[in-house]
Amino acid sequence: MSTTNRRKIIIDCDPGHDDAIAILLGAANPNVELVGITTVAGNAEVEKTTVNALKVCEIAGLTDLPVAKGSGQPLVRKRETAADIHGDSGMDGPSLPDPKKTIVGEHAVDFIIRQLLASEGNITLVPVGPLTNIAMAIRKEPAIMPKIREIVLMGGGTFGNWTPAAEFNIFVDAEAAKVVFESGVPLTMFGLDLTHKALATPEIQERIQAIGNPVSGFVVELLQFFMHTYKEVFGFDGAPIHDACCVAYCIDPSVFTCRKLHVDIETQGEYTYGMTVVDMLGVTGKEPNVNVALELDTEKFWDMMISTLARYSDKK
Amino acid sequence: MSTTNRRKIIIDCDPGHDDAIAILLGAANPNVELVGITTVAGNAEVEKTTVNALKVCEIAGLTDLPVAKGSGQPLVRKRETAADIHGDSGMDGPSLPDPKKTIVGEHAVDFIIRQLLASEGNITLVPVGPLTNIAMAIRKEPAIMPKIREIVLMGGGTFGNWTPAAEFNIFVDAEAAKVVFESGVPLTMFGLDLTHKALATPEIQERIQAIGNPVSGFVVELLQFFMHTYKEVFGFDGAPIHDACCVAYCIDPSVFTCRKLHVDIETQGEYTYGMTVVDMLGVTGKEPNVNVALELDTEKFWDMMISTLARYSDKK
Amino acid sequence: MSTTNRRKIIIDCDPGHDDAIAILLGAANPNVELVGITTVAGNAEVEKTTVNALKVCEIAGLTDLPVAKGSGQPLVRKRETAADIHGDSGMDGPSLPDPKKTIVGEHAVDFIIRQLLASEGNITLVPVGPLTNIAMAIRKEPAIMPKIREIVLMGGGTFGNWTPAAEFNIFVDAEAAKVVFESGVPLTMFGLDLTHKALATPEIQERIQAIGNPVSGFVVELLQFFMHTYKEVFGFDGAPIHDACCVAYCIDPSVFTCRKLHVDIETQGEYTYGMTVVDMLGVTGKEPNVNVALELDTEKFWDMMISTLARYSDKK
Amino acid sequence: MSTTNRRKIIIDCDPGHDDAIAILLGAANPNVELVGITTVAGNAEVEKTTVNALKVCEIAGLTDLPVAKGSGQPLVRKRETAADIHGDSGMDGPSLPDPKKTIVGEHAVDFIIRQLLASEGNITLVPVGPLTNIAMAIRKEPAIMPKIREIVLMGGGTFGNWTPAAEFNIFVDAEAAKVVFESGVPLTMFGLDLTHKALATPEIQERIQAIGNPVSGFVVELLQFFMHTYKEVFGFDGAPIHDACCVAYCIDPSVFTCRKLHVDIETQGEYTYGMTVVDMLGVTGKEPNVNVALELDTEKFWDMMISTLARYSDKK
Repeated sequence: MSTTNRRKIIIDCDPGHDDAIAILLGAANPNVELVGITTVAGNAEVEKTTVNALKVCEIAGLTDLPVAKGSGQPLVRKRETAADIHGDSGMDGPSLPDPKKTIVGEHAVDFIIRQLLASEGNITLVPVGPLTNIAMAIRKEPAIMPKIREIVLMGGGTFGNWTPAAEFNIFVDAEAAKVVFESGVPLTMFGLDLTHKALATPEIQERIQAIGNPVSGFVVELLQFFMHTYKEVFGFDGAPIHDACCVAYCIDPSVFTCRKLHVDIETQGEYTYGMTVVDMLGVTGKEPNVNVALELDTEKFWDMMISTLARYSDKK
Repeated sequence: MSTTNRRKIIIDCDPGHDDAIAILLGAANPNVELVGITTVAGNAEVEKTTVNALKVCEIAGLTDLPVAKGSGQPLVRKRETAADIHGDSGMDGPSLPDPKKTIVGEHAVDFIIRQLLASEGNITLVPVGPLTNIAMAIRKEPAIMPKIREIVLMGGGTFGNWTPAAEFNIFVDAEAAKVVFESGVPLTMFGLDLTHKALATPEIQERIQAIGNPVSGFVVELLQFFMHTYKEVFGFDGAPIHDACCVAYCIDPSVFTCRKLHVDIETQGEYTYGMTVVDMLGVTGKEPNVNVALELDTEKFWDMMISTLARYSDKK
Repeated sequence: MSTTNRRKIIIDCDPGHDDAIAILLGAANPNVELVGITTVAGNAEVEKTTVNALKVCEIAGLTDLPVAKGSGQPLVRKRETAADIHGDSGMDGPSLPDPKKTIVGEHAVDFIIRQLLASEGNITLVPVGPLTNIAMAIRKEPAIMPKIREIVLMGGGTFGNWTPAAEFNIFVDAEAAKVVFESGVPLTMFGLDLTHKALATPEIQERIQAIGNPVSGFVVELLQFFMHTYKEVFGFDGAPIHDACCVAYCIDPSVFTCRKLHVDIETQGEYTYGMTVVDMLGVTGKEPNVNVALELDTEKFWDMMISTLARYSDKK
Repeated sequence: MSTTNRRKIIIDCDPGHDDAIAILLGAANPNVELVGITTVAGNAEVEKTTVNALKVCEIAGLTDLPVAKGSGQPLVRKRETAADIHGDSGMDGPSLPDPKKTIVGEHAVDFIIRQLLASEGNITLVPVGPLTNIAMAIRKEPAIMPKIREIVLMGGGTFGNWTPAAEFNIFVDAEAAKVVFESGVPLTMFGLDLTHKALATPEIQERIQAIGNPVSGFVVELLQFFMHTYKEVFGFDGAPIHDACCVAYCIDPSVFTCRKLHVDIETQGEYTYGMTVVDMLGVTGKEPNVNVALELDTEKFWDMMISTLARYSDKK
């Protein structure tokens, strides 16, 4: 496959166990071209998520890929992190050396703006953490909006995990989510309805282990830690690799079943702040503004994941 | 079965197609004793829902049952009705003569207070419309609270039908719902998660038609109208008889599977006013305050319904 | 002056120091006829405010005046009282014997409804505590609304005393206030803009002391306690007798300067719950719905107060 | 006075009649050194306010002063402008040629960040429009916060002009205001309580006219248009030159009387969105976070204004 046919993506992330897997998937799959990585506060402080992103790049052999550090605070609210899910480092579990790779000198917001303005409108943004950087980029330079091919984001759903109504990424910066969801840019949303079905069960973890290269070993370590906290906090029997779904969609949308629906972001509720209010029954009469991922082909999904991780064997 | 073993219930309703079926079920089943009916604005104005309640009583032969008219306005907000679901009368479909039966001279709120204070703590309140009367009774005479055996209500759910987040009964008077849900009185909630499974399909309607008494004929007329609007508005292939589920639970709780969960009522949201925020995953750490009905045994449910409606054959 | 020309009033109150003075003023001034007193939770729990109301009636010789106990909880929210302003009893300061007088057997809400329905539309309601009883009466029996001559209430203002934005009476039950302010009934509002000008300074207290009857002595005791807490909490050099202003208006409206303005009740704000949003500059374009008292003729006001309190000398 | 003793300021503005006067005051008074001008959407779209800022610079002879264009949209909400106050251009009244001067190539947010980071902590930000640029700068580069000497802003007050509760600048971007007011940076707030006292009456306009230089003539044209709309909309007998007060404070703080008070920004209210909730009576017990300007020495203020405008006679 020639480079020109590969879908260009920028992953905006807060690694994060599932963020790491999203990067590894995006870096090695031939259907996408990873243009850069930008970081944001979310699962942990931005200083930590940035170090984690650099570590993942080193493991993946992404020596030259630009990593730009982004927003350390939500647009309006106070910061909240998820140490009980991802550990204190934001990516507890695997033990990795300090990265030699460094960030670029440009702020994530400016990196995104510059890449988009210079593009032919063929870059997809893949934000898998809070939407702070994306909202700031849209507000700082509205001219980027028609240049964005699509925003494929992890967040939201018809139920919550951080509160009964809100998923973590949207809850952390609901004002940023409001900016993005009301922007008019084409959006595909991977919410909990979908990502809780992308469950790395012990059987899946065995298949990954069997690949037998350093990257697959690292992935298994990530999954073991993540599965443990999901078991403790939610009673799950596997690790939902939320963020990787967005990259999988960019690689092959046919893995997923989506519906075009209207979604509003709640920023006012007493118990519902950060909820993505999805009009499943069409009762609002409002135009759909989001392509909502609802089902996945589990077999195709894990085959894609495993065959991509296997490519790291050749790289070494 | 002796009268003393029957569960005493007051049905507080806004008939309403499914309200009518709830009354018919409660009036003829030997496991419950219907102490009275109180009315409230909801599916239609209280003047209309009161006339509808009287008509249903006449059909059911409930000559002496007290019917008390209640609140015509929500506790705080402006009234909203559901003419597109229930028709202009609130119970369109069957053509019935004007009722000869009349209401008692006591306001619904005072009827509820008096019955409870005079009771031995063995009356269950079954509100299947907006919770205005119940909230007003609690606020006017807090001494009723320890006298209520249980409140078995139709309303709410983990999704909405009037807005994407809110079910009609709770949406119409979320402030009243807040009073009731925060009261500490034992609550069982039949929300949409459950009631959308109590679907009177064409096959069920045929079984009811086959009973062949006037009441069953009336029920089929109700179901046909209701199924039609649910088809038009929501694309359903049957009529969900929401309200009857609450009475069925009083008759035989083993028909339903419930979970004790924490539920908050949202009264502040921009897009979520009237939502029952159900903590399905236990992320709030708050004590469960509601017994939430989630599954029903469809076969047992319809057998109960049909055998009870068949009892009206003997009455004539 | 014949009885028929006297303005009939029902004082709905939560005594409360200034409530007590309002009652004393209304009981002795020949321009008004006190039809009854209803009580509500506010400055203290309703059990305490009711006892206080009975005590004040005994001091004023109101042997036959009906006192009806009302709501002990706000319409929707949790109760909040003002012990740091009025002391634990709600009327700390004067030491009074337990009252022999008792309440009537009717709930305040029902007393208000019955009196209004039986009237010729000439009763003015004078709520000087939270508006819970008035809102419940309006919702329980909307037919009273055209029967109310006017509601002359103490509450609100363009600034707050309980929070920076909200005055205590409205804050305690903003949902009730919303019902009353949106009812369409003629309203005159005595908010803090006005009542902070009705300041019983030491000089005024000397004039009252000089009257030399038991009632004036009681009033001075009230004022001394109240002045003390207003000094402590707000740095005031006198006691604002908020509630008495409403009765003074019923006696002689010419004492006050009012403007017809639009007022909305905020029930959603993070920092502004319970604010009366007064459109002083007319920027909303909404129709005025409230007659807002803004200025008083201090000399006329205190002359009326002192001459009325002097009438208690003749009674003994 | 040597340059090093002059107070360095960046004016962030949306000219705007009073913004123009603020620039003219800041450009000619020897006590301050104008480091740059940044623009924002507010009174009009940012394209218009930027052109207006350039025009004012040309009139003032500010050939080399950098003007950086900023945010065209509030942080989260939809844009709202004030054409009924400032006309369609944002600065209707005077007829000026298209400016030859151009903006710098740097976004206002980046200009502010770069200037602050390069400074010795001696730059005062003077935002006199919506706070969008300031909030974005704080969020994009939190390291600027300890570098800001003070933020002297026009906005808010204990009452509103755009809604009954909210002043225009804060209303337009209350989320940005929340970021700024909660930042911990030293803040002085010139709200309507103060700025409505800085009224350019016809007498003041005559004094300005009498200066007799081109700049004073331009100011009189601005004031005549502005006085006219304030007469129409608010019934004022003069033009309140809100924004100039902030610059006057930087020149000589002794012109104003301020109090340190706690101020919260309301972003949730139904009727109070954008209110600066000022704790005048100290009832919240929260630490003061804002220095609130409440009184001005009218004579000193206008003498400063007129003597500064007179300096433009020498420049020509």
